[in-house]
Amino acid sequence: MDFQHWPPVYDEHYFPAPSQRYWFPHIETMDPAERETLILRKLQAIVRWAWEHSPFYRQKWEGAGVHPDHLRTLDDLHRFPVVTKAELRREQAEHPPFGRYLCVDRSEIIRIHGTSGTTGKPTVFAIGRDDWRRIANAHARIMWGMGLRPTDTIFIASFFSLYLGSWGVLVGGERLQATCFPFGAGVPGQTAMAVRWLREMRPTAFYSTPSYALHLAEVAAEEQIDPRDFGFRLMFFSGEPGAGIPATKRKIEEIFGARCVDSGSMAEMTPWMSNAECAFRHGMHLWQDLVYCEVCDPQTFEPVPFGREGTPVYTHLERTSQPMIRLLSGDLTRWVNEPCECGRTYPRLPYGIYGRIDDMFIVRGENIYPSAIEDTLRPMEGFGGEFQIIIDREKAMDKLVIRVEYSEEWAQQAKITPGTLDQLQDQMAKRLRSVIGVWPVIKLEPPGTLPRTEFKARRVVDNRQLYEALVEPSS
Amino acid sequence: MDFQHWPPVYDEHYFPAPSQRYWFPHIETMDPAERETLILRKLQAIVRWAWEHSPFYRQKWEGAGVHPDHLRTLDDLHRFPVVTKAELRREQAEHPPFGRYLCVDRSEIIRIHGTSGTTGKPTVFAIGRDDWRRIANAHARIMWGMGLRPTDTIFIASFFSLYLGSWGVLVGGERLQATCFPFGAGVPGQTAMAVRWLREMRPTAFYSTPSYALHLAEVAAEEQIDPRDFGFRLMFFSGEPGAGIPATKRKIEEIFGARCVDSGSMAEMTPWMSNAECAFRHGMHLWQDLVYCEVCDPQTFEPVPFGREGTPVYTHLERTSQPMIRLLSGDLTRWVNEPCECGRTYPRLPYGIYGRIDDMFIVRGENIYPSAIEDTLRPMEGFGGEFQIIIDREKAMDKLVIRVEYSEEWAQQAKITPGTLDQLQDQMAKRLRSVIGVWPVIKLEPPGTLPRTEFKARRVVDNRQLYEALVEPSS
Repeated sequence: MDFQHWPPVYDEHYFPAPSQRYWFPHIETMDPAERETLILRKLQAIVRWAWEHSPFYRQKWEGAGVHPDHLRTLDDLHRFPVVTKAELRREQAEHPPFGRYLCVDRSEIIRIHGTSGTTGKPTVFAIGRDDWRRIANAHARIMWGMGLRPTDTIFIASFFSLYLGSWGVLVGGERLQATCFPFGAGVPGQTAMAVRWLREMRPTAFYSTPSYALHLAEVAAEEQIDPRDFGFRLMFFSGEPGAGIPATKRKIEEIFGARCVDSGSMAEMTPWMSNAECAFRHGMHLWQDLVYCEVCDPQTFEPVPFGREGTPVYTHLERTSQPMIRLLSGDLTRWVNEPCECGRTYPRLPYGIYGRIDDMFIVRGENIYPSAIEDTLRPMEGFGGEFQIIIDREKAMDKLVIRVEYSEEWAQQAKITPGTLDQLQDQMAKRLRSVIGVWPVIKLEPPGTLPRTEFKARRVVDNRQLYEALVEPSS
Repeated sequence: MDFQHWPPVYDEHYFPAPSQRYWFPHIETMDPAERETLILRKLQAIVRWAWEHSPFYRQKWEGAGVHPDHLRTLDDLHRFPVVTKAELRREQAEHPPFGRYLCVDRSEIIRIHGTSGTTGKPTVFAIGRDDWRRIANAHARIMWGMGLRPTDTIFIASFFSLYLGSWGVLVGGERLQATCFPFGAGVPGQTAMAVRWLREMRPTAFYSTPSYALHLAEVAAEEQIDPRDFGFRLMFFSGEPGAGIPATKRKIEEIFGARCVDSGSMAEMTPWMSNAECAFRHGMHLWQDLVYCEVCDPQTFEPVPFGREGTPVYTHLERTSQPMIRLLSGDLTRWVNEPCECGRTYPRLPYGIYGRIDDMFIVRGENIYPSAIEDTLRPMEGFGGEFQIIIDREKAMDKLVIRVEYSEEWAQQAKITPGTLDQLQDQMAKRLRSVIGVWPVIKLEPPGTLPRTEFKARRVVDNRQLYEALVEPSS
């Protein structure tokens, strides 16, 4: 790679020795201060690129009184206003289909993807030819860090369509020279077919969302197949938290007998794997020279010190087609800058992404994250793996109902009677009360009652309609 | 491209002038006799490759008393025995997972795909790194011949999973430098979403199976959208006949106001587009220097003269990973060698692929054998031993109905009620879905209801009239 040139052009013939821990040893282990010089140079280049090619950014920045010349140090970056997803949707509605932040000629676009449009109008992603190669090289490098090697066969069990997760793994796996088995997901009956293929082909690596992996294990169990028989060595995930939540990580590792690695930022940020654990899995590294991440105060959007909690704000350093400069994730995490066992000198998110600054919900004044509820229930005896949160308002008082499936195993051991159900419900409510600060009403249900998602788990039903008029951040 | 070297290596930087009709003018328009020399050289190379790398082929050929040295002219090829799909399945069952016709090192494999396993055990496809590039170059060249150009945006509306159709279009479209929008298909609700995206993005080109295009038009109509408003210029198809049948072609062209182009051979033969129409669409050309096709007598497997009907027997000329040498398609077609308006000097299939020499049938792009249905039902409790397959077309979508007799024994044990019938029907449908890849409608009937045959059971009733509007050839 030529570090002087921007946008960077990767040597497609480069390949590390298989015994080598790092794809690019120098960059991955360099002194953080030295890396900051590299990052700043790339940052200055992409900000200028956007200023010159995007009326959207220029207008936004002029309105905020900032100019590329103001970016003299990394610390200057927070003077540039954050971009929200709502803003991107609005921009694309006004300037269809790509918005005025498409910074390459249309002839350069080789791929179109998008969001599935759950919030009304979908967002369209256009990816340039050169960007696609940079994404491939970034993902290969990060997947190498997870421990993937050319000898691996990667079974990709997520939907190949608008969703970029599957495609990013595929193009990274190809660059890594692994064998890719892009099986997909989402079509009725496909999970049962996946079980058959997995048993037959025994791929060494597996990618999906964490909830899909748990679903797969259930389908395997229905066919009397132990998921350990698939023989996975490495499973890596994105698309929803889960794999970074200690209890879920442990559960996946136990069920499959494989190493569980967390990754993921946002589809808009592709290469989205710029947050990703290494093979030691002490929390996701921020691969800062690919995508620069600031963990920020959710009100001021200024970076918080290491050790503190905040929301990631991401900036592309290599994407020319639709560069995102300070895209607000709305996620919640805590970052640290302590050394990792792997030797990489990137900051880390030791607890992964564990909440949302917007889907976090408040019940009787308490901030509650579904992930906290999940983390509390997972290790409890009797918990069947699925739950749903329903928030109601009863006579002006918030009522938190958690529907929980009990496990088959528990049902067999403890005879199901109103008595045993009450007892387990009480235990769960008590345990949760101590974690979330609110007494929930637990409703135990038989296994298989709750709706399954093959994609992102949607577990919170808020009937109070409190958050309808979400305030846009005052950039 | 270096024509002296085998396996061929394509120049990835080569690109024809946009105004040029042909990708490789010289090869596509050369004197057929001259081309035969080229084909023979490639044929000799691949037969020797298989002999040296594949115990499967060597054993088979030794048994038939043939040797690569016997291949002195194209005419000698028919001395080599045909390969059947059943043979490949058997070989993979005995030598899992790839069979002894995998002719490259496992480290060369970059992709795994497969059939959906209609005959019980699926066939596994392993594609080598270099083959994948050759497939890309072959498809780009053929798609260029269809009239696709870098300015096109190709909406790919077929399932991205085992099925190679979608992937072949994608990798060809990428090499052609078109914009690819790999939308996929098959997930509940996805067609309605496709309608929204098509109206919004207005891609110029569209790929799917012909029946899916008709289904899409119906879904559009439900939303009061005229499919002509999508603005397609070019639609191209494979996966099932249809697009080559004059009446269906006309129907698609009228509904969408676009040019309808037929293509396709077999997944095993990827690059499968080696049968494909050009922009003039006078029937599929046989791109003989990529995949050599002989249209053969269904008994002797010797080529029939031009003008006659037979079954295509295919031979890879550039695939090193799993070379198919004389793979019997079992399809039915008629070939001619008359000049085409486009100026290419390849033979043609003026009526496309219009039938089968066996009882295999295709529903929603899945190859289905009655024997697979029988094998699945046989061990099931409640199955009475007789069944009948009825294929209908309902609103342009294939509908597979299977009338099944339940057993006397089951009728005695389980009281016959709507509930017990439903339950057994569900079980059978679910089991079959996982094997044949399509949801059937099961109709349970009392023992003795279905017609008996004394000789070969003729169990398939196809009401779709796929092949009906066939014009009798004049030659």
